[in-house]
Amino acid sequence: MKISIIGSGNVGSHLSIAFENHHHQIYEVFSRQKSKASHLASTLYQAATKTDLDFSKSKAELFILAVSDDAMIEVCAKLILPENAILAHTSGGTSLEDLQKLMLIHHDLPVKCAVFYPLMTFTAGKKLDLKDVPFCIESHDEETEQKLVGIAQELSNVVYLISSEERKALHVAAVFACNFTNHLLALAKGITDSEDLEFDLLKPLIRETFRKALATENPADVQTGPAIRGDETTINRHLDYLKEDENLVEIYEIMTESIQNI
Amino acid sequence: MKISIIGSGNVGSHLSIAFENHHHQIYEVFSRQKSKASHLASTLYQAATKTDLDFSKSKAELFILAVSDDAMIEVCAKLILPENAILAHTSGGTSLEDLQKLMLIHHDLPVKCAVFYPLMTFTAGKKLDLKDVPFCIESHDEETEQKLVGIAQELSNVVYLISSEERKALHVAAVFACNFTNHLLALAKGITDSEDLEFDLLKPLIRETFRKALATENPADVQTGPAIRGDETTINRHLDYLKEDENLVEIYEIMTESIQNI
Repeated sequence: MKISIIGSGNVGSHLSIAFENHHHQIYEVFSRQKSKASHLASTLYQAATKTDLDFSKSKAELFILAVSDDAMIEVCAKLILPENAILAHTSGGTSLEDLQKLMLIHHDLPVKCAVFYPLMTFTAGKKLDLKDVPFCIESHDEETEQKLVGIAQELSNVVYLISSEERKALHVAAVFACNFTNHLLALAKGITDSEDLEFDLLKPLIRETFRKALATENPADVQTGPAIRGDETTINRHLDYLKEDENLVEIYEIMTESIQNI
Repeated sequence: MKISIIGSGNVGSHLSIAFENHHHQIYEVFSRQKSKASHLASTLYQAATKTDLDFSKSKAELFILAVSDDAMIEVCAKLILPENAILAHTSGGTSLEDLQKLMLIHHDLPVKCAVFYPLMTFTAGKKLDLKDVPFCIESHDEETEQKLVGIAQELSNVVYLISSEERKALHVAAVFACNFTNHLLALAKGITDSEDLEFDLLKPLIRETFRKALATENPADVQTGPAIRGDETTINRHLDYLKEDENLVEIYEIMTESIQNI
């Protein structure tokens, strides 16, 4: 299939390479920053760098919209696609309806809107095997949905039809499970730094924590620590230790309370 | 070395078995719950079940005090040890001084107090290789310290001399990195449950998050998500999604603010 990529950030780059590896042709790459588009295009087999959003003469059948949620309004306003093209966004947080509305406001031509959302955190420049990455597909057009499921199944063993409402829940849950947990690890590193201790000391514990949480049916079943034990002596000692840092005290208190109330 | 174990919870059980595997003899096991003591003793080679805390006639040289911080006061008040015994507690949160004070209040006989703290989360009935577990050793008596370092080095490749102040920081950091992160995973599971979605969908993302955080020097360097991007559209969508659950809203807001202020 001929595919064009709109947006050359982490998601756009990773998907482009994966599509090429599965014998699809990346036809065009657009980015609001031209240098990023041409850089990505240069790593691909024969993709052209596109500097505007008029794709009316494009031979691509599928347009992957991999821009930030904030940029989507601006991009959709200018986007012109060939007849019968599929436009699939890759965002966890934007509903299919929102994309359809954005396209309907500005365009007469019918476009087949869809969602092609890989539930993963991508890092620039780091290759990542997509075969275990869940792909969440959605479209109101059944033929489009089946086409996207087919392409996703080439990339990954885990492909789901997920509604916009379900995807929103997944996106929120991912913020707790990924972004917030990473931040707690950063805070823990700050605490060890303050005593000139190596963060490495905590790594075996962190590895075991996650191994255990992922091996169980519900992480709540393997909760440990002073909060779940109701060990007030230790909790008060910890709060006393943290007392100079209002932010850490607040997080400690609210997480302790939440553990005790679950 | 002849070792007696006071406390037959997760830490006491795991250490007993590890000591035996390295050719130390577990001489006696005490627990406030007799059935737990005799159960642990029965899994060991020739350990006796002890029903009281008078060890004055014991032949053990090292007494591992693996009871909860809350139980330590009560146990130390009744504990009678043979002359020149080493008493090492396994707690992250109790200082060496606190143990010395507890033993001095109630006893005339000098006891060599120490700390033998494995920085790990132990699960009942689950075998765990201790070779990567950091052991934190502390004693004011150099000979005692060296003996405990020697024993710890048989069990693990990672043995540190750690002061009580440093250990307190490690313990607090471990609560953030282990207990609180596990709770965030439990909350994420609750969110997927509420939409009848499989928690398994999030597992590849969780694995990648922790792989990434542990592979970098500072987890803050690989922070992703709407908070660090300043993506207010998505943050507001998420808060709106969570609005029925005050606890989740509060955690979302405080974690988002903390990420943005780091």
